[in-house]
Amino acid sequence: MTDLATAAARDASDRLARYRDLFAIPDAGLLYMDGNSLGRPPVRSLERLTEAAHEEWADGLVRSWAHWVELPAAGGDLLAPLLGAQPGEAALTDQTSINLYKLATAAVSHRAGPIVTDSANFPSDLYVLRAVAERAGVELRIVDSTPEMGTPPDRLAAAAEGAALVSLSHVAYKSGALADMAEITAASHRAGAMVLWDLSHSVGAVPIDLAGCEADLAVGCTYKYLNGGPGAPAFLYVRSDLQPVLDQPIQGWFGHSDMFAFAGEFRAAPDIRRFTVGTPPILSLAAAMEGIRVSAEAGIGAIREKSIALTELIVDLFDAWLAPLGFALGSPRDPRRRGGHVAVRHPDGRDICRRLAEEHQVITDFRGPDSIRIAPAALYTRFVDVWHAMDRLRKLAA
Amino acid sequence: MTDLATAAARDASDRLARYRDLFAIPDAGLLYMDGNSLGRPPVRSLERLTEAAHEEWADGLVRSWAHWVELPAAGGDLLAPLLGAQPGEAALTDQTSINLYKLATAAVSHRAGPIVTDSANFPSDLYVLRAVAERAGVELRIVDSTPEMGTPPDRLAAAAEGAALVSLSHVAYKSGALADMAEITAASHRAGAMVLWDLSHSVGAVPIDLAGCEADLAVGCTYKYLNGGPGAPAFLYVRSDLQPVLDQPIQGWFGHSDMFAFAGEFRAAPDIRRFTVGTPPILSLAAAMEGIRVSAEAGIGAIREKSIALTELIVDLFDAWLAPLGFALGSPRDPRRRGGHVAVRHPDGRDICRRLAEEHQVITDFRGPDSIRIAPAALYTRFVDVWHAMDRLRKLAA
Repeated sequence: MTDLATAAARDASDRLARYRDLFAIPDAGLLYMDGNSLGRPPVRSLERLTEAAHEEWADGLVRSWAHWVELPAAGGDLLAPLLGAQPGEAALTDQTSINLYKLATAAVSHRAGPIVTDSANFPSDLYVLRAVAERAGVELRIVDSTPEMGTPPDRLAAAAEGAALVSLSHVAYKSGALADMAEITAASHRAGAMVLWDLSHSVGAVPIDLAGCEADLAVGCTYKYLNGGPGAPAFLYVRSDLQPVLDQPIQGWFGHSDMFAFAGEFRAAPDIRRFTVGTPPILSLAAAMEGIRVSAEAGIGAIREKSIALTELIVDLFDAWLAPLGFALGSPRDPRRRGGHVAVRHPDGRDICRRLAEEHQVITDFRGPDSIRIAPAALYTRFVDVWHAMDRLRKLAA
Repeated sequence: MTDLATAAARDASDRLARYRDLFAIPDAGLLYMDGNSLGRPPVRSLERLTEAAHEEWADGLVRSWAHWVELPAAGGDLLAPLLGAQPGEAALTDQTSINLYKLATAAVSHRAGPIVTDSANFPSDLYVLRAVAERAGVELRIVDSTPEMGTPPDRLAAAAEGAALVSLSHVAYKSGALADMAEITAASHRAGAMVLWDLSHSVGAVPIDLAGCEADLAVGCTYKYLNGGPGAPAFLYVRSDLQPVLDQPIQGWFGHSDMFAFAGEFRAAPDIRRFTVGTPPILSLAAAMEGIRVSAEAGIGAIREKSIALTELIVDLFDAWLAPLGFALGSPRDPRRRGGHVAVRHPDGRDICRRLAEEHQVITDFRGPDSIRIAPAALYTRFVDVWHAMDRLRKLAA
């Protein structure tokens, strides 16, 4: 299972193999294991960017707003199948932290009460939620999480009693632990709280069924597994029945029911647009939509199947090669509880990660105190890439 | 003064004439008088976009964040001369309405009290300010403004008594009326209020001296006279002495003093970065910076001089051709009180504006109930373009 020939054989039978050709990969020698931080560009995204800049901006000029204005909602509809959402329930807009702020503030304005999160949540989420809680005068409850196992649902459920909102990352940014969305959402609802999921590290890597879980709210970014481009617009999801009853705090003209009337009074749009604010960055948005389109076409079932096979190969090679060298596994061993990346821990992790990149053409990333994150994005990563990356890692650390 | 030969002679002696060659103008027959809505792309912006997409995203991948992370502050420094600001006082980030929300909320959190604005302010600004005021439990005072003359400074000063914040547009979006920033800022300060300027319709068209006026706060967009691209990231300005004492409500990781430490606790950056939030849309941001660079290089003095000459030509042709046809001037007649565009009013304005574009290759825009806005951006608009646009307008309306 740990020899190169087996990896090559798996590439030969990989039904997603042809997707690699849809990506711009100028340096074929680079082993890129950091698609969970910034995905590679689809060729189509680069073409679309040129089209948006030359045909729509330079030539179409202001007339292009006739269709640009539809892009935030159209992008949400494109994304909906990857979220398990219905058309009209998502929009591409702003950045993840801003969307989290808008929806968390909307939730605690709708129903006062504490906000619950866990210690494995992304730091920016913790900052935003703490500031929202302080401004609303409610408690922020942070449930302890272990890197390898995530946060026990029963402890989350206990913390959710009397709370207004439970807000968690679906996949933990450091360990890759995958939360049980259905169970946690149901338990939070039983406790009387709404749930707001941050899908940044799961969307495009893991099947998501917001509707099936009856999730209330979600946010996430598009520049990781969705390959939307650096800092591409993020997304937000608001379940359709909640859209008319929630009011977000940043009332800008894109959230107006008739923005081009330029009325003096704000009247919130009745739909997902009410959660948008201002003029979207069209060039970045146009590129992002093509990234989403590639993932939607490949299908999340096929992506997840290959992603699990790739991360299982990492765990197998970890056991065979890295554990004897003093590494520890920093991710759940059960693939059903793991997202698209694997963390391996080592006291010299920071230095190893840096040298892997600078001296051995393997890009991973480091999260303190000791985690090297290895993310083999299924759409463009080969089994032999994983094999070689792990081989270079073991030789470096030996 | 109103013949074509005179206009052509002025183009021949225009010291900014060569700047037109720096812009991508695929359709030379189009008379584009809507640069106050969406500026044309500088050729350099299109080239920079390609570079950012291919060399930095596709090839550099996540490693490009080493310099991308500096762009919001670097873009602010590039913009500073056009704002009359010092390096470190501005950043390119988010959208104008979001920046307005952040800074207005910061201001009323710092010192409680009413917010003052005027009825000529951009509707999105009114929406944002009203929501901020309601959430803070303070009054929103809206001073009446006349389209042609703007808002009387003495009435603003009276409204500012006891207020926490005065927030106005420097140039009114509809009439183009230019507020006296120095006088209004001084009067507001005497009344005890901070001042937050929206520079969207003035930056890149009108000299701005935030430091000289001792203005407190400002926001604005980069996609109008700065030619930053559709929905390009906006900017915000916070006077340096206010930066450590104001706290904005959306505490995201880009505002952290050490974001890559991924600490659990938020510690606001001591500088302008504390007013930023999340990952910026790099492709849009990279293009925007080149637009700003072109304006900074041309110099706001030369831009303003030509802009006044162009709008004076519009007013002269209005008097000669349009007034007799039942049009009214919707902008201040005194060029010292006018920004970069001129509004002409007509009961059939909406239809005339549409037919000008569809049948006569003249792009202007319409703002209800009756204003056609004509904006001859100085960097790429010729005097003969203005002459022909007005000539087609009079023939259409005759």
